[in-house]
Parts: sequence; structure tokens; C-alpha cells
Amino acid sequence: MKSEEEKVAIVGIGHSKFGKRMDVSINELGWEAIRPALQDAGITQKDVDFYSVGNFGYWSEEILPAVTIGEYAGLSCGSLKTEAACASGSASLKIAMDSILSGNGKIAMAIGIEKMYNSPNGTIIELIGRAGNYFWEFENFGMTFPGYYALYASRYLHDYNYREEDLCESAVKAHHYGALNPYAQFQKETTIEECMKSKYVSRPLKLMDSSPITDGAAAVILARGDVARKLTDTPIYIDGQGYATGTAYIGRRDGYTGLEASRRASEMALKKAGLEGIGNNFDLFEVHDCFTIAEVMAYEDVGLARRGEGIKLLKEHQTYRDGKFPVNLDGGLKSKGHPIGATGISQAVEITKQLRGEAEKGRQAEIRKGRALQHNVGGTGHYAYVTIYSRGD
Amino acid sequence: MKSEEEKVAIVGIGHSKFGKRMDVSINELGWEAIRPALQDAGITQKDVDFYSVGNFGYWSEEILPAVTIGEYAGLSCGSLKTEAACASGSASLKIAMDSILSGNGKIAMAIGIEKMYNSPNGTIIELIGRAGNYFWEFENFGMTFPGYYALYASRYLHDYNYREEDLCESAVKAHHYGALNPYAQFQKETTIEECMKSKYVSRPLKLMDSSPITDGAAAVILARGDVARKLTDTPIYIDGQGYATGTAYIGRRDGYTGLEASRRASEMALKKAGLEGIGNNFDLFEVHDCFTIAEVMAYEDVGLARRGEGIKLLKEHQTYRDGKFPVNLDGGLKSKGHPIGATGISQAVEITKQLRGEAEKGRQAEIRKGRALQHNVGGTGHYAYVTIYSRGD
Repeated sequence: MKSEEEKVAIVGIGHSKFGKRMDVSINELGWEAIRPALQDAGITQKDVDFYSVGNFGYWSEEILPAVTIGEYAGLSCGSLKTEAACASGSASLKIAMDSILSGNGKIAMAIGIEKMYNSPNGTIIELIGRAGNYFWEFENFGMTFPGYYALYASRYLHDYNYREEDLCESAVKAHHYGALNPYAQFQKETTIEECMKSKYVSRPLKLMDSSPITDGAAAVILARGDVARKLTDTPIYIDGQGYATGTAYIGRRDGYTGLEASRRASEMALKKAGLEGIGNNFDLFEVHDCFTIAEVMAYEDVGLARRGEGIKLLKEHQTYRDGKFPVNLDGGLKSKGHPIGATGISQAVEITKQLRGEAEKGRQAEIRKGRALQHNVGGTGHYAYVTIYSRGD
Repeated sequence: MKSEEEKVAIVGIGHSKFGKRMDVSINELGWEAIRPALQDAGITQKDVDFYSVGNFGYWSEEILPAVTIGEYAGLSCGSLKTEAACASGSASLKIAMDSILSGNGKIAMAIGIEKMYNSPNGTIIELIGRAGNYFWEFENFGMTFPGYYALYASRYLHDYNYREEDLCESAVKAHHYGALNPYAQFQKETTIEECMKSKYVSRPLKLMDSSPITDGAAAVILARGDVARKLTDTPIYIDGQGYATGTAYIGRRDGYTGLEASRRASEMALKKAGLEGIGNNFDLFEVHDCFTIAEVMAYEDVGLARRGEGIKLLKEHQTYRDGKFPVNLDGGLKSKGHPIGATGISQAVEITKQLRGEAEKGRQAEIRKGRALQHNVGGTGHYAYVTIYSRGD
């Protein structure tokens, strides 16, 4: 049994509106998340011992974003920027968490931010594509991220005998909840028909199978357990985090219907949290649905479904709010948006809201166990981070 | 008194040859540091619980360097990349250190790497310049890093009545020790005359006042105290680290003869290590001499000399090996080279070699107290990290 001094909890959350945000600089966008997080925790900038900024940002005008975002927000404690591709937010969370558990501070802030619309049109797809594997796959085959996930989708649909319509179930669910989330980029429902009619991006994946280009920021404030208890009546503890690094080469993957790094990270997280498996231990999940196929694979990699049976959960509405495993009740990357460096922190904000019982009407999960799981992938399985949260009831 | 389980120590070090390294890819360059570090620690890749990669890398072809470097080196545990400008190596060290002290692992690796010659000629100076402050100073005034430090040098020489020749004393010392370091980019001595005759880069700073463009990598393996004791007879403990974030705007600085962030980071590091000041507590120092003026300011910011008296230490040879405060016995950034993300880890490698008594002939300090201090600046005082090491005698 850990003492409160050996624990870490979220005591404040902030989230900007996601979308095309040409109205703000990257520093102003950061402040949209940092200010509410400070207010929520009831602290000031001087109380923060360290902050980390998750950001990919190869298209940014400011190339030391941690410094300029911090300065704009009035933070002058130690800081750094971290990048773990689309899992940069989870890496930022790890750094803030460890900076407390190490004894190096009592309060830390994990920020995630991305401003993707700044990049000249077209360039951004190329820059993201280079994150696959530049030397071999990008340069020689012109691979981009939709192309990578299309390979996985093709294999999955073939091996398990599903159709493109079935993948669209993920988009329909995402937009259903995105419509209820005021911070989401797309606040409107969609249908299987609309999804099927959308243009192919990389066959079999269509526009409506794909998460969008997004600007956005999110922030969480972490505190040592004993400090958290003084700051809030509803601390949300981080019970354990798992992580793994996968091969960058698509040709070296162990299969094309799941991500090996996700499986290893999930196992590590469950073990650290002292849990034997998914079972009935969780009230909700946040998974990395950068494409519809990614949500399906996540179900299977995390352990919500057996191999090849992920789509069934969707079709049976078992991952809707009132199903067995509620997943992405905020609209997910697909509908809420996917500002690369912000996504991992946005997931943490959503889980905190849900476990506190503060989610918007129509999308609040029933909280029985007081526990949730976050799954965040970088690249196409290059990085995986899985984090387990609880109310500590 | 901390138990061994509450401590962290360096148990393995590796360092590539610094210089223009067109003969290797970034992954191969990383392996040049990682392989000797693993061998030195007597462990294999599977023993590593987490690794962090300090890298700036806006000019890299591989934009997920932590993944590709790790894969090439056979590492598949969790990982991330971090950036704190020229202090990225120290940020990488913090992450690896905290990942152990947090209880999240027993062995971690901190890597620092940069491949700067990959950038098309000219581009790199512009890219580094953007790190000053893009929005205002770079875009409007065309500020580059030599320009920033030239402002500091002008003020310092004026306020304290020194001459350009006096700054050259720093370059002469750097090259004296660089000539004795087989890993250094420049292994040759220089003179005040040669320094004075070199071209102006940004008046009053000349080519010989400036650190070079460098490719290089360095790695350290950290272990929890009890594990370290089993792996080596000469663990080098990290006793404390301080850090601060400064304003990005040159116009908002509190003065132009020192860096406020360095002073705050030094105070924090000394406090964490349980020391009252510099006194006679240290056998050697590594300071961030990206320009000659930066070395002088570092002396004063860290506390080796009073304001305006740093150059006196140089002129009196008090920061040579046999002086009162031996500084940069590896040649420093000026002569050893300054591969941005690698520098902080290179400093840690040097301190470990020195405290073990393993430095090359002619540049080994006399170790009496068994303690050393590392000072690493990012940007022009945007970031500062100060780390204190000891043999734990």
C-alpha cells in the first residue's frame, strides 16, 4: 500500500477549443488550456515546480515552444519540450509525473499543444509521412500516414472478413459523441452512408475514416498525493503507466492487424496498476483512433476484444456510453480532433472530467469502479503509452 | 541520509568522436555512443527500462530520432525525445534520472545527439537563430546566436573595462585541453594572436570566440543506487539538479553581463545537493562556453567569481587544471565541439571520466572532494540546467 507521498494525482485540467485556430498564436493557444487548469487547481504559476510541453511542431514558427508558451503563461520554473510523435502528450505526462514521484517537486504541469494549420497546405502531410520511416519508406515508396493505416485496414478486413461499412461504425460513434463535446472540432453526427460516400484518402480508408488536421492545447496539473488531497476533494490518481517503442519499419512488424507496442504498453500499465486484466475494472477508455481501423486494433491490443472481434463490439454498440466498455465519449481523435502533441493530454483531461462526473450531458459515463484507461500511440506503433487512472476510492 | 534505493548513479558512459561526421547516419552515430556505454556498464539492451534522447534536430532527415536510434541500437523499452535547445542533453538526463527515482525503473539511458552538418549550408544559422525569439527578434531584426552573445560581450567588455584579447583567453584554454581530448573536434592549440586575427562573426565576437557546427553523440547509463553498487565499483552519483526557464525576449532580460536563469538553476542545484555554495566543494566544472563570453558569464553566474571578475580567473589560469577551479578540461564546447542535443550528456560523460580518474594524460584533474558541477544553457538563457555529481565517498 503506497502512502499519499508516493502517489501522484491530477488536480487541475484545462482544454482549448479544438479546430482551425488561426485566431491565436501558439502561446495564446497554450494559455487557453493553462489558465483554466491553474484556476481548476486553485494555484498560481509560482506553485508549479516543473512543466513539460508535448509538441511535435516541425511546422512551428517558434522552435522553442516550451519557453515562449511558458513565458506567455507566466511560468519560469524548469521546463522542457518532449516529442513522442502522436503520443507526445503522454510523454509529457510521464515527465511531469516522474518529476513529482522522484522527489524533485510537489506540483508539475503537463501541457500538450499543436498548431497544425500553420503549415503550408500539403507540406504537413509530407512532414507527418517522414515520421513513418524516412530513410527507406518515405523516400523510396512515398508512404504517408493514411497509406500506412490503409495497409493495416486492408489486412484486417481481409483476414477477418469485414467490409468498409463496418469500419465506418467507428466514425459514426465518434461523431455521435463529438456532437456533444463543446471542445470538439466537429460537432455534428454522421452516418454509415455519409462515411461510405466520402472520398478515398488511401483505399480502403476514406476521408470519414480519418482524423483531421487540428490546432489545440490541453493541460493537466499534477500534485503529490498529500498535496493533492489539500487542493481538491476529487483527485484523480495515476495508478500506472506502460510504454514501449516499436520498430519504425513497416516491413519488420510482427503482423498487420494490431500494434505490438500497444500490447506491451498495456500489459505494463495493468501490471503497474496491480490489475490482472481489463475484466470489469474500468468505467471508460480513451483509445487512439487516428483512423477508424486504429480504434478497432486498439480494442484488441488493449484487451477489450479478442483478435478479429473488435468490430463486433462497435456493431453491437458495446463501446457506446451504455455498453460494456465505453470508449472515446469525447468524440475521439476522429471527431474531437487530433492536434498531435495535445492528444495525450486531451485524453487525460477527458478521463479526469469523466471520473469526476463532470462530462457534458449525454456523454457522462456511469462511474462504478472509479477507474479508466488511456491508450495513446505515436507514429504507426513507433511509440505506445498506456496510462491507468482512478479516483482512489 | 538517503538510502541507496533513493539515489541514482551513472554506471556507464559512451562518447562518439565529435566533428564533421558525414561518414555515419544519425542512427550509426548514436550507436557509437550507446555501444561503449552498455559495455562500460556491463549490461545489455534488455536491462534498460527507459531511454530518452536529447535532440534539437530541426534539420534532421529522421524526424522520430528516438525511435530509429533506439531500434538501430536494439532498444525496445519505452522512450521519448526531449528538446531544451542547447540544454537538451541535460533535459534528457533529468528524464532518465526521474524515471528511476520515481520508482518506474531501475536502469535508464540518457542519450544526446545532433547531426548538424546535414543541414544545407546557411540554413542552420537561420534555424538556430529562430530559437532566440522568432516572432519579434528573428523576424524583425534578423537576430542570430552570435548576434545575441555579441550584445552580451559588448556590454561586459564596456562595463568592466576589458578588451577582446581578454575574451580570447577562454579560446586558448579550450584549445589547450581540446588538443588532449581524442574525442574533440579540434585537437590543436591556439594563441591570443591567432584568436585576434580570426574574422569577426558578430563584433566583438570572432570566429575563434565561437563554438563550431558539430556532429556528435554521447550516452550515459543510470542505475538506482543499490543496482549501481552491484554493477560498478565507481558509481558517480547525481546529487541534485537545478533548472530554470528564462525570458525568450532579449529586451526583457534583467541585465546583459550574466544569465538570470543560470543563477537560479545553480542555486537550486546547490540546495538540492545540500551545499551552501561553491567554496572548496568541487574538483572540477563543466560550463556552457558556446562563445568565449558565455564561459566568463558562467563563472560569475555559477559563483566561481564575483560579477565582472570572471575574466581575471582566466588570465590568472585559475580555471586551468592546476588552478583553483578547473573548468572544461575536455576542451569545452569551443574546442571539443557543440552538437546541440549531445552537449549536456557529453559534459556528464566528461565529469564521470574525471571523477573516476580516467581522463586522458595531461587533462586529469586532481580529485580530492570527489565532486563536480555541470552548467548547461539552452538558447541565450532560455533554459538553464545545473547538475551536481559526486563519487559518494
